[in-house]
Amino acid sequence: MTSELKDIDGVPGTTSSDDDEEYDVIIVGAGAAGVGVGIALLHAGVENFVIVDRKTVGASFAAWPDETRFITPSFPSNSIGMLDLNSIAIGISPAFSMRVEHPTGAEYAEHLEGIAEFFQLPLKENTEVKNIDKKSGIFLVNTEGGILRSRFVIWSAGEYQYPNLKGFSGSELCRHTSTVSRYSDLEGDDFLIIGGYESGIDAAVHLSNLDKKIRLFDMNAPWLEETSDPSVSLSTFSFERMDNPMFEKNTKLFPNTAVKSVTHEDGVYVLKTADSQTFSSPNQPLLAGGFTGSHKFVSHLFDMRDDGFPVINDNDES
Amino acid sequence: MTSELKDIDGVPGTTSSDDDEEYDVIIVGAGAAGVGVGIALLHAGVENFVIVDRKTVGASFAAWPDETRFITPSFPSNSIGMLDLNSIAIGISPAFSMRVEHPTGAEYAEHLEGIAEFFQLPLKENTEVKNIDKKSGIFLVNTEGGILRSRFVIWSAGEYQYPNLKGFSGSELCRHTSTVSRYSDLEGDDFLIIGGYESGIDAAVHLSNLDKKIRLFDMNAPWLEETSDPSVSLSTFSFERMDNPMFEKNTKLFPNTAVKSVTHEDGVYVLKTADSQTFSSPNQPLLAGGFTGSHKFVSHLFDMRDDGFPVINDNDES
Repeated sequence: MTSELKDIDGVPGTTSSDDDEEYDVIIVGAGAAGVGVGIALLHAGVENFVIVDRKTVGASFAAWPDETRFITPSFPSNSIGMLDLNSIAIGISPAFSMRVEHPTGAEYAEHLEGIAEFFQLPLKENTEVKNIDKKSGIFLVNTEGGILRSRFVIWSAGEYQYPNLKGFSGSELCRHTSTVSRYSDLEGDDFLIIGGYESGIDAAVHLSNLDKKIRLFDMNAPWLEETSDPSVSLSTFSFERMDNPMFEKNTKLFPNTAVKSVTHEDGVYVLKTADSQTFSSPNQPLLAGGFTGSHKFVSHLFDMRDDGFPVINDNDES
Repeated sequence: MTSELKDIDGVPGTTSSDDDEEYDVIIVGAGAAGVGVGIALLHAGVENFVIVDRKTVGASFAAWPDETRFITPSFPSNSIGMLDLNSIAIGISPAFSMRVEHPTGAEYAEHLEGIAEFFQLPLKENTEVKNIDKKSGIFLVNTEGGILRSRFVIWSAGEYQYPNLKGFSGSELCRHTSTVSRYSDLEGDDFLIIGGYESGIDAAVHLSNLDKKIRLFDMNAPWLEETSDPSVSLSTFSFERMDNPMFEKNTKLFPNTAVKSVTHEDGVYVLKTADSQTFSSPNQPLLAGGFTGSHKFVSHLFDMRDDGFPVINDNDES
C-alpha cells in the first residue's frame, strides 16, 4: 500500500506514515458543524472516523472578540419538540448547559469541547490539512503528520480563519474585525467601520458603549432590509442593540455608500467613498467585510456550476 | 326560538337579545390563544365566529408590570421552518414585526392588536361572559349584552386575571405581583417575596436593579432544578438575570422554605416560615404565587377525572 501511495501525483513527501490509518470518514474542522456531524455519524453507527482540526475544538469561536455574542438566542425548548437554535445535535441545548441566551465565542467553544469529550469523539487536533486529493476512489488527506486515507471526506472547515480583505483600494490598510481580541483594548476615540452586516454593527455597538464615535459605511443598507430571512436581514439581537441611546448617540450610519479607497499618510487614515465624500481618522479603520470561506481549498474536488457554485446532488440540504 | 331560550334553566334575564346571533364558534378571550385560534379558524374556512373579551385584545398582557418581559426569546426564523417561540400563527413573528427579543406585555398586546386588525378578526370587546350553559346541543354564552348562541365554544380565557391569593395564613395581606403596574413605583427599601418561579424572580430582578434588598422564599427551589423542560425549570432569561452582580448583591434566596403565616401589626409585616424563622419588613410582602386559572368558570361543562382534571378526548393536544 505504501508504495502505491508514494509521491502521489508526483508530489514529494506524500508518503503515508501509517499503513493502518484508513478511515470510513474524515471530517475536516472541529467547529460546530464538525462536532455535530461527528455525533450524527455515531448515531448512525459509523465508528471508524476522525475529526481533524488545525487547532482545537471550537478554536474559531474562541478567537471571536471577547464582547461578541451569538446573534441567535438559545432556549432549552426541546420538551416541546423545537431545537435550541444554537444546538448541534438532538437533545443538546447550549441554553440548558450554559444558562446563557447569547453565548460569547469563548463560551460556545467550551460548550463544543464539553460535547466532544462527552461523546468521546475521535479527534486529531493541531493537525493542519495541506491538501486533499483523490486516487482510486480513496481520498488522500495530506497533513503535516502524514497522509490520512478515507472513503469519504466531510468538509466542515469554517470561514472565520479567512477574512475577506479585498473589495476596494487600500483595504489591506484596514484591520479586519476578526483580528480584534477585545474591543475595549482598541485605542482611539473615533472609528471608521466598513461593512454594516452583523460584524460591523457588532463592532459599532461595543465601541459605542465605550463612548467612541463611529462612522459606519455599507454599500447597501442591511439595517433597512424588510425581510424575515435571517441570512439577509440583520438579527433581532442587532436591531435591539441599535435601538440603544449609546448607539444612537455615537454611531452615524452611511447606507448605500460604497467605499472607494483608504489611504494612510502622515498618521491619518483617509477614506473616500464612491460618491466623493472624504472622511479621516487617526485610528486604523475596521473592516467588517465578512469572510471568503475555506471551500476554495477543496473546490477542485467538485464540479462547478457556471456561476461558480459547486454542483450538488439531490441529497443536498444546504 | 326566543321563547325556547327565555329564562334558561330558570335564570331570569337570560333571554336572547338578538335572534340572529347564532355562531358556529364563539371564542372566549382575545389573548394570544384566542387571536391565534381565530386566525386558525379563518385558515380553515370558518367565518361565522366571534371572539368575546371582557376587556380588549391582549388586555392581560397590557396589565403586566412595565418592566416584565417575555421569558421566551423571539427570533424570526421562519425561513428555516422553525417558528418564533412567541408566534401565534404560521408566518407571524413578533421578532420580525417588533424587533425585540423579549417584548414587554404592553408591546405584545400591541402586536396582538395589530394582528387582530390585519386579519379583521370579528371581535366583541368589553363584553364580559357571565356564564355558559348548554341546551339542546347549543351553547348559550350569557353576557351583559345578551345571550350569544353557538354550536361550539372555545375557552381561551387566560389566568392572569385570577391570581392565586391563598396558600398560607395572612396571604390576603400580601400584594400579588400581577397588581404591580411598575416596580420602580414601589416605595420602600426592602421586600419579602413569596414564590420563586418566574414571577417572583422577575420581581426580585427589577427590585434588585433598583438597589432594594430582597428576601425571597419558595417551598421548593426552582432555581436549582436541573431539567430542560421550560415548564418546570426557570427560563434561561431568568437564570441569566440572576447571574448579575446587582441580583447577587441584593437578593437573598431561601429555598425549600415554606411560608406559614404573614401578619401585620403596628405597621410591620411579619413573615413566619414553617421551620420557625421570622422575618419582618415595613413594606407589603409581594406574593408571586401564580394563578388559579379561569377554567373553573366552565368546569361544569366537562366531565371530571378523579384527580380533578377535565376528561379530554383523543384529539386533545394540550
